[in-house]
Amino acid sequence: MAYDTNNIFARILRGELPCHKVYEDDDTFAFLDIMPRADGHTLVLPRSPAVNLIDATPAQLSSVILTVQRIARAAKSAFAADGVRIEQFNEAAGGQMVFHLHFHVLPRWTGVDLRPPGKMADPEVLKAHAETLRKALAA
Amino acid sequence: MAYDTNNIFARILRGELPCHKVYEDDDTFAFLDIMPRADGHTLVLPRSPAVNLIDATPAQLSSVILTVQRIARAAKSAFAADGVRIEQFNEAAGGQMVFHLHFHVLPRWTGVDLRPPGKMADPEVLKAHAETLRKALAA
Repeated sequence: MAYDTNNIFARILRGELPCHKVYEDDDTFAFLDIMPRADGHTLVLPRSPAVNLIDATPAQLSSVILTVQRIARAAKSAFAADGVRIEQFNEAAGGQMVFHLHFHVLPRWTGVDLRPPGKMADPEVLKAHAETLRKALAA
Repeated sequence: MAYDTNNIFARILRGELPCHKVYEDDDTFAFLDIMPRADGHTLVLPRSPAVNLIDATPAQLSSVILTVQRIARAAKSAFAADGVRIEQFNEAAGGQMVFHLHFHVLPRWTGVDLRPPGKMADPEVLKAHAETLRKALAA
């Protein structure tokens, strides 16, 4: 599949669409999933185009996985999570819905199930969670 | 949590327990999950100790994610998969059951659900699937 430069994550990366930004550096970008399956559910992307893990370059994978770790550590601390689940989907059959490579970082708590997919969160809650994560990342 | 040098993946890495090996290099090791949620379900590990993503070093993460990509590409080809799902669990609350860092590579097909967890596969089937994957990796 060719990379579509107008996918919604490409538009977020270009600043054409808003997001609840959590972190950015020269190579990667992270923001909250607007349909979070857990509080603090964050998406981590390379800034440069890649459809998914299959066509990504070694440099993209190395930088993105380090940001995944950074977010996982911060989310665990910021939300007093007992664990963290990482998910990454490739192609529609693999669960991928936006065709720009991204990793899901999902804080987990003992006895708390993931929420079902597809439910939009209150923007004020997302705003507060992004702020909480940014503070933990800055600490 | 301190790393337990007798966890089952450490013992597999030392050759003390058998596995259906798919791939190895200086830094990483990959073998089939014996309770596969999909045909070709493979686990990718660093050879060196890390409990999970939280305590892993940048070198471990970079080498492991490249092997994850290598396995994902080969599995997609070897099993004519339509997509691939990557999962990585941290701490018991995150779904982790063996406390040596590992990534799950799950081939996916349109219309085929993942199997429920916890069911052992026929060793002969695993042997054949490992062979299929090794051939795709060598191609």
